[in-house]
Amino acid sequence: MNCEIICVGTEILLGDIINTNSQYISKSLSEIGLNLLYHTTTGDNPKRLKAAFEEAYERSDIVIATGGLGPTQDDLTKETAAEVMGLEMEVNEEWMKNLEIIFKDRMTPNNLKQADIPKGAKMLYNQNGTAPGVLIENEEKTKAIILLPGPPREMIPMFDECVMPYLMKKSGKTFYSRYYKITNYGESALEHVLLDLFDKQSNPTIATYAKENGILLRVTANADNKEDADVLLQKYEDIIYQRVGDGIFATEDISLSQVVLNLLEEKGMMLAAAESCTGGNIAAAITELPGSSKVFYGSMVTYSNEAKMKVLGVKKETLDQFGAVSEETAREMVQGLAKLSDADISVAVTGISGPEGGSEKKPVGLCYVAVSYQDKVFCEKVTYPTRRRSHQLRMTGYALNMVRQIILEDDK
Amino acid sequence: MNCEIICVGTEILLGDIINTNSQYISKSLSEIGLNLLYHTTTGDNPKRLKAAFEEAYERSDIVIATGGLGPTQDDLTKETAAEVMGLEMEVNEEWMKNLEIIFKDRMTPNNLKQADIPKGAKMLYNQNGTAPGVLIENEEKTKAIILLPGPPREMIPMFDECVMPYLMKKSGKTFYSRYYKITNYGESALEHVLLDLFDKQSNPTIATYAKENGILLRVTANADNKEDADVLLQKYEDIIYQRVGDGIFATEDISLSQVVLNLLEEKGMMLAAAESCTGGNIAAAITELPGSSKVFYGSMVTYSNEAKMKVLGVKKETLDQFGAVSEETAREMVQGLAKLSDADISVAVTGISGPEGGSEKKPVGLCYVAVSYQDKVFCEKVTYPTRRRSHQLRMTGYALNMVRQIILEDDK
Repeated sequence: MNCEIICVGTEILLGDIINTNSQYISKSLSEIGLNLLYHTTTGDNPKRLKAAFEEAYERSDIVIATGGLGPTQDDLTKETAAEVMGLEMEVNEEWMKNLEIIFKDRMTPNNLKQADIPKGAKMLYNQNGTAPGVLIENEEKTKAIILLPGPPREMIPMFDECVMPYLMKKSGKTFYSRYYKITNYGESALEHVLLDLFDKQSNPTIATYAKENGILLRVTANADNKEDADVLLQKYEDIIYQRVGDGIFATEDISLSQVVLNLLEEKGMMLAAAESCTGGNIAAAITELPGSSKVFYGSMVTYSNEAKMKVLGVKKETLDQFGAVSEETAREMVQGLAKLSDADISVAVTGISGPEGGSEKKPVGLCYVAVSYQDKVFCEKVTYPTRRRSHQLRMTGYALNMVRQIILEDDK
Repeated sequence: MNCEIICVGTEILLGDIINTNSQYISKSLSEIGLNLLYHTTTGDNPKRLKAAFEEAYERSDIVIATGGLGPTQDDLTKETAAEVMGLEMEVNEEWMKNLEIIFKDRMTPNNLKQADIPKGAKMLYNQNGTAPGVLIENEEKTKAIILLPGPPREMIPMFDECVMPYLMKKSGKTFYSRYYKITNYGESALEHVLLDLFDKQSNPTIATYAKENGILLRVTANADNKEDADVLLQKYEDIIYQRVGDGIFATEDISLSQVVLNLLEEKGMMLAAAESCTGGNIAAAITELPGSSKVFYGSMVTYSNEAKMKVLGVKKETLDQFGAVSEETAREMVQGLAKLSDADISVAVTGISGPEGGSEKKPVGLCYVAVSYQDKVFCEKVTYPTRRRSHQLRMTGYALNMVRQIILEDDK
């Protein structure tokens, strides 16, 4: 079953907006193993729009179009698709009633047009707008054109709720997925470690999604029922935990800082941080979240040695003898912080994010993370040479994950 | 002169990456008044790729393709374009020499292939990769196919430096632009304030680009020579400075934190910060930049009242009487910080980013920014109700801009 996407939007051709709809639909189709042959974007020009529909309908089984369902004269997607499929337009009574509720006495002829759909087509409910979607199948039900609104907040729920079930049913396949959110590994490192699982022909399939706050790993099995799928998925899960379990902090798409915040809330704990190389990114990750003030004392971003001494009480001799990036300094930072803040758990980070400041003995990428918890101090050395910003973010993740692990370890 | 874009990339069809190249090119073409008819994305399938090129070359004057210039068997864009234009491939000696420098003795036959370009085509230099771009004109020079690499960091400089001048020359139009980088205003607020300048038919034209670290405003005049352009541009510049000059921190695309860092370096000054609602984002913005350790003492992210008292010496009575979000607290924060750090300039921020914590008297969005400089303390109150993360970033920009303005004011 071949699919293709047509985006209707002069704004996209002008570069005013980016085509996120195509990516969303593409990713969803690839998750359920459907082939996507083309994306085409065209403007509101009737002739070009018609040519695009004709060509797509000719060469593909399913044509998914987004945009051009609005109330204005420029919005011609429905009419054009109907013409290509040889259908008249007719009023959809259900949507007309809905429009009457939405607009009451403010209804204009333009709005009325939004209740028209091609004869025999199925109306797709729009939760967030006044333009319904449309699913039009040919008589033999071998081909279909699906029309969705352009704004992502209207398109996405309609696609998820109306289109995906239709496509899954049509493709005769059923899919079950498990998700893992991972820190301490980049996308390519993950792919390297799990290379043998990345065969697109295998079942389950596996895919990584680089998110701002970690990697989301998706494992999807194609099976007749959930029990069969679980057997397939569990086999992969065991391998994944064995190889990268130390970096897995959630089995859903959630940020690491949210996981840590939830854990702190649950335990009624207060966290304090002292940051050198991460430069405020631990604080930023935590304070980005609503409710963080209840669990976060603050962070001493002691970027200079003066600040490390003055605020955290790191000894001058320690800095002179071992340097700012050393286990000794990391330990004194976290001990000073614990004393200053009286927080339940304290974390300190010192490292070399580069591009300058590295040496043979202490290369760019070197970092020490220390955690003080219940009168014990843990310290880990980690080396991850990369670009400055990536190092800062990776070490932020490392520190937060270490906090998470130490709290959880205590439960055992 | 009609243009269209072909993106070659299975990753785009799979939804693994988003098609930012098309947007970049579209926006640039619309800036110089060129019509873009279609975006097409197709995978590495030779038959479909050829069909896409044939169709595009038939209906448009300029076809710009991105992707598929790599060294692997899958990368067929050059060969396909050559075939459609009826050209053989030949070795480009200049690029071959370049490859020999890059790869030395690690060169493989695959890499060698990257020096091949269609006979008679112009090689476009790639600053950031091993695949050169290609410009192929037909004999009459009425039509052209332009091939660019897929990765944006390779595509964008090549497009800006090689393709834009070619297209401008070809379209017989000359454009001159001025840029303004702006903080304290969102994209829609800017458009609102400058609405009368946003007419697409006028000369100059004006456009906004939302960047992670502020808004870039571009004003472009179409004129026969630079003198005429300058007259047109200056008229707009005067209006823009009059209406939003307080937010303009640069006349190029540079981050505010980089501007502040440069200024501190130039003056030999040390900056210290104390952050409550910005939660480490001032520190993160500064420390993201190489060289920040020379000008940045650190930031005390005193998220809790305990930290404000203990680290910065804010008085309990001040917090009790005026609250953590008050001018009095902001002033005590910055004074305590200045004393602690002995930095040349100190900035403190306290506010309510929401979604909770607001009240009728102190609504979500309220913020106080205080700066201590040369024994003077400045304090500003600013209210910007928005989502939590946006508030944090906006207030970070506000604080850094205030630091910038106070240092510059001192020069006068």
